[in-house]
Amino acid sequence: MPLIRYPQFCALARAAELIGERWTLLIIRELLLGPKRFSDLRSRLPGISSSVLAERLTRLDEADLVQRAHLEPPAASSVYELTGDGRALEPVIFALIRWGARYLFPARPGEQLEPEWIRLVLAAYARKGRTPAHSFEIRMPAGEREVVVHVAGGAKGTAVAQGGSPADATLVADAEAVLGLMAGILRPADALRQGQIRAQGDLEALSVFPHLFDVTEDRR
Amino acid sequence: MPLIRYPQFCALARAAELIGERWTLLIIRELLLGPKRFSDLRSRLPGISSSVLAERLTRLDEADLVQRAHLEPPAASSVYELTGDGRALEPVIFALIRWGARYLFPARPGEQLEPEWIRLVLAAYARKGRTPAHSFEIRMPAGEREVVVHVAGGAKGTAVAQGGSPADATLVADAEAVLGLMAGILRPADALRQGQIRAQGDLEALSVFPHLFDVTEDRR
Repeated sequence: MPLIRYPQFCALARAAELIGERWTLLIIRELLLGPKRFSDLRSRLPGISSSVLAERLTRLDEADLVQRAHLEPPAASSVYELTGDGRALEPVIFALIRWGARYLFPARPGEQLEPEWIRLVLAAYARKGRTPAHSFEIRMPAGEREVVVHVAGGAKGTAVAQGGSPADATLVADAEAVLGLMAGILRPADALRQGQIRAQGDLEALSVFPHLFDVTEDRR
Repeated sequence: MPLIRYPQFCALARAAELIGERWTLLIIRELLLGPKRFSDLRSRLPGISSSVLAERLTRLDEADLVQRAHLEPPAASSVYELTGDGRALEPVIFALIRWGARYLFPARPGEQLEPEWIRLVLAAYARKGRTPAHSFEIRMPAGEREVVVHVAGGAKGTAVAQGGSPADATLVADAEAVLGLMAGILRPADALRQGQIRAQGDLEALSVFPHLFDVTEDRR
């Protein structure tokens, strides 16, 4: 049962009942990136209390947007994952990212930036329609790990996927540099020369990278 | 200053700070339909208190999403309207409408349904890319008034606009019937025969009406 009910026969009001509470959109963001344990979710949402997170997950479960799954040993843990209706929120999240980006700067002191989020950002801005047929493996350091994203242009638009696959070029860069390259405000040649990114493979292809994205204002 | 701050360098979190409070999305919906007085907004949002509405409008004003405008006499009243950044929320609202529609039925007892909302719904589902070049004037009774929407197919997709312009056919129908026609679950010929809609002009063109919309699931 949602926390609030709007007495309106309106699809927007129904959506606002289900995902309009504080933190809920950020929980959806984390689960769009993949199934997560309760403790993983908490570490991605500093400031949320255990009780609020548990309450939100219960409501999302009741609304059939999130479900629990149990991983096989050796993980042997319980995770939360999106259902089909939950994953169908992707266009909503992408539209919110595109709109909210105008408020991203300036960064505030101490803000968290998870490299994994960049995968959603790249997907939100992926150009539709034919894009140059070049592919890129992007490796972003994330603590002791690495977040790897595969970006490929093609006839049906730019595809963004998790993990490394063979690519024309491999980029090693931090999240900010990848955002700058995507937005066209950091030129690949400058970034290489200044050491903001490292690259292997077809370095010529790098100049194509910004063309795989459409950072213009949504037309409507 | 938003009511909540998420300490995250994330466009989605920024958006959630600005429009993630209860009622705010519904206020944006009303203002996407046009400037409104405070009292107009209240009547469209039963259940909201004056103080909550005033508080939300103040925050939206501070965030430069909403601004006040003063109408010339004889209206001589003060209205709220969206700024450019506020209007830029349209793709977000459309994505939410498309997602939330799966939860629309069943209607709950006593729910409000404003015919003016149908304009946003038609726009949210308007098909992109070439659509049949037929135009329709839709007249929906709304109390003592009438809401008039113009829908036109064309090379650049279906356009949905406020007000009546010359059209191939004029439909008089209530909001539910228009939704049914749009979704393809009410056939125009059946609706005419059963008296759910009345029509003038090119009745042959009516069969085209559902093809002006795309009610399939968002692909991503």
